[in-house]
Order: sequence, then structure tokens, then C-alpha cells
Amino acid sequence: MTTQPSSFYFPAPRSQKFCSQCATEISYITPPDDNRLRAVCQSCGAVHYQNPRNVVGVLPIFNDKILLCRRAISPRYNKWTLPAGFMELGETTAQGAMRETQEEAGAQIELGSLYTVIDVPHAEQVHFFYLAKVLSPELAPGPESLEARFFSPETIPWDELAFRTVITTLEHYLDDKKNGVFDSPHQKPPVHHYDVPLPMHDF
Amino acid sequence: MTTQPSSFYFPAPRSQKFCSQCATEISYITPPDDNRLRAVCQSCGAVHYQNPRNVVGVLPIFNDKILLCRRAISPRYNKWTLPAGFMELGETTAQGAMRETQEEAGAQIELGSLYTVIDVPHAEQVHFFYLAKVLSPELAPGPESLEARFFSPETIPWDELAFRTVITTLEHYLDDKKNGVFDSPHQKPPVHHYDVPLPMHDF
Repeated sequence: MTTQPSSFYFPAPRSQKFCSQCATEISYITPPDDNRLRAVCQSCGAVHYQNPRNVVGVLPIFNDKILLCRRAISPRYNKWTLPAGFMELGETTAQGAMRETQEEAGAQIELGSLYTVIDVPHAEQVHFFYLAKVLSPELAPGPESLEARFFSPETIPWDELAFRTVITTLEHYLDDKKNGVFDSPHQKPPVHHYDVPLPMHDF
Repeated sequence: MTTQPSSFYFPAPRSQKFCSQCATEISYITPPDDNRLRAVCQSCGAVHYQNPRNVVGVLPIFNDKILLCRRAISPRYNKWTLPAGFMELGETTAQGAMRETQEEAGAQIELGSLYTVIDVPHAEQVHFFYLAKVLSPELAPGPESLEARFFSPETIPWDELAFRTVITTLEHYLDDKKNGVFDSPHQKPPVHHYDVPLPMHDF
């Protein structure tokens, strides 16, 4: 422990050393009535649960072009991505997706429906992407983006995309577009999710 | 700080007093390049982000009856609910939903598709419910349930249900069943979500 103020900041690791409530050293034990190891304070009794986080973003479309941002941060520095980031306390997935679009691309959008929900258990995350209509070509990318740019389907930089969930979401969009899913004003686009298959007449 | 081992355990509050990395007292400040107050350690520089949590569960069906559990824990002690609970690290939403069904009802199920995704921002949660087919009438509710029981649609205890997201999920199911959504083996049931409406031919 030092008394010098920090000159740099970093996200606290998930693995914790001290109790956030009473500063006692943490033990990793299975609490009573539980079935897995937790970060537990054996002094004050606080159990420090940890849970997966949600990443929320959009698939922003402007005149048949797709808005992508080039990352100015790790991981995947310099790679292209859909605007997305961690969901914050007190917001909905939709509000988070709109906020991230504003922060990373400076784009004005009208949000559409939820489009992909993708489990990413190895990263302890669930990713959500919404369809979105971009209302103006004016962009103002924030400090987390090196640039923001519109791509026609033919020019998507597939080999330079940052995340598998971005690739999957773009693949679904191009497939659905080819299959006319967005052609009818009365047809609601599907939500794509890695489903466990089961014949549906069983319900 | 005490040297006596705790005799009781409680979930650590979201509001934290000490740094989990170096045990220094926490400051609430806006870190550089951020735009909201965070729990920050000004000694070691750790920023303690907090994010919404996912609740994962199932809508378990056995011969047109719905499996509900009566809660043995707070909140909503003694109220009826669908089997559900907090998603854990390292699992998918589907795996979490199956685990909760086993823990709370002791039911053997075959998981179907994702069915409702409901934002609950005031509770800092997102709820996911999957369709599920119960494979056997044998139940073995765990310590978090007072009992588990099958209800026909006519006998659902609407006034004794624990959560709004459970009510919403059951309402969607009964509507979809009435409308023949589950009748065809080739038709995939919808994912219900609180969408932001936008005419879909705009994409």
C-alpha cells in the first residue's frame, strides 16, 4: 500500500485480493448453501459474486452501407468493429447500444430491433447487436476509435474485423438481406441466437 | 476489521469501501478518458467497473402444463416463479438456464430456443427465458424452493407470481400457443423482446 496518488489507471482484475467491505484478505472457499468457490471474506462474511458482462452494440446502416469503426484501444487495436461496448448500470441494452454508437462513431441513429444475441462464454460475455438506421452521413468518432467509415457489402474488410461476434452479425445481415427479410414493412426481422435445437411442436 | 471468523455470509454490496487489489479506501471520481463516476483506487489506480447482471431461466412445459417453483428465498419469499437465477462465469445463457432448472426444481429438461429477453434497468438486470420440454414428472426441488409443481394454464397463480418478467413470459407463451405458433415443426418461435419500433423495410 502506498500513499502516493496513482498516476495511471487500469480496470481492476476480476481476481481480488482484499474484501471491498472491510479490507481483510480474501479466501477462496465454497460458502454454506453454495456449490462453487467464491471470493469470500471470512472476517465480515461478504461473498463477492462475479457474473458475465453484456456487450451492447448496433449494426448501423446508411443507404445500404454499413458503418464500422477502427479501434483505437486494446484488444484488437486497429481492427474494424461495429460500435459496441460494455453495458452500464441503470441502462437497457438498447440505451447502451445507442450510447456506444454515439461515443465510438458520433453517429445519429434510429434504433431498430434486437438482431443478434451471442453467448461468448470463454470471455464471460453475452453480446447484443441491434439493427439501426443512420440518419446522417456526418460522423464524429470519439477517442476509442481511430476512424469511422461506411462500407458497401462488397468492401467489408473481413480479414480486418475485430471480433467473431461482429463477423457473425454481419454475415446474418447480408444473408437476411439477400433473402428479402427486410423487404416487407410488416415482417419483423428474426433475432439470431445460438439456439439449442428442438422441434417446436413439442411445446 | 476483526480477527474472528464470520459466522454468517452475505452478498457483498455493489457499493464498495476498499480497493480489492490493495485495500486502500475507495474514491468515487471520474477517471481520465471516462465520463461517469467510478469506484477508483487513487493509490494503485484500479478502476472498479460495475455492470448489469443476467438472470437466466426456462419456461418448462410438461404435457401442456407449466412448471413453477415456490421461492424459499428473498426477495419474493413464498411467491411462484419460473426456475431462474444469476448467470455464472464460464457458462452460456442456455447452460445457466439448465443449471437453474436442475437446482430449483430438480427437473430433467430438453432445452428449446431462447424465448424472452427482457431489460430490467431499475434492477440492473437483463432476464432471459428459454422454452424447455420437461422429460419426466419427477421433481426434486432444492433448498431455494419450498415446492415445485405443474400448473395447467387455467390454474396459474397470477396474483402470486414473483416477478414481472415471469408474468410477461407466461403471457407471451399463452398468446403464442393460442395463435398456433408452436403447431408447426418447421416454424421457429419468436424471441420476444421490448423492441424499439422502426419500419423494417428501412434496412
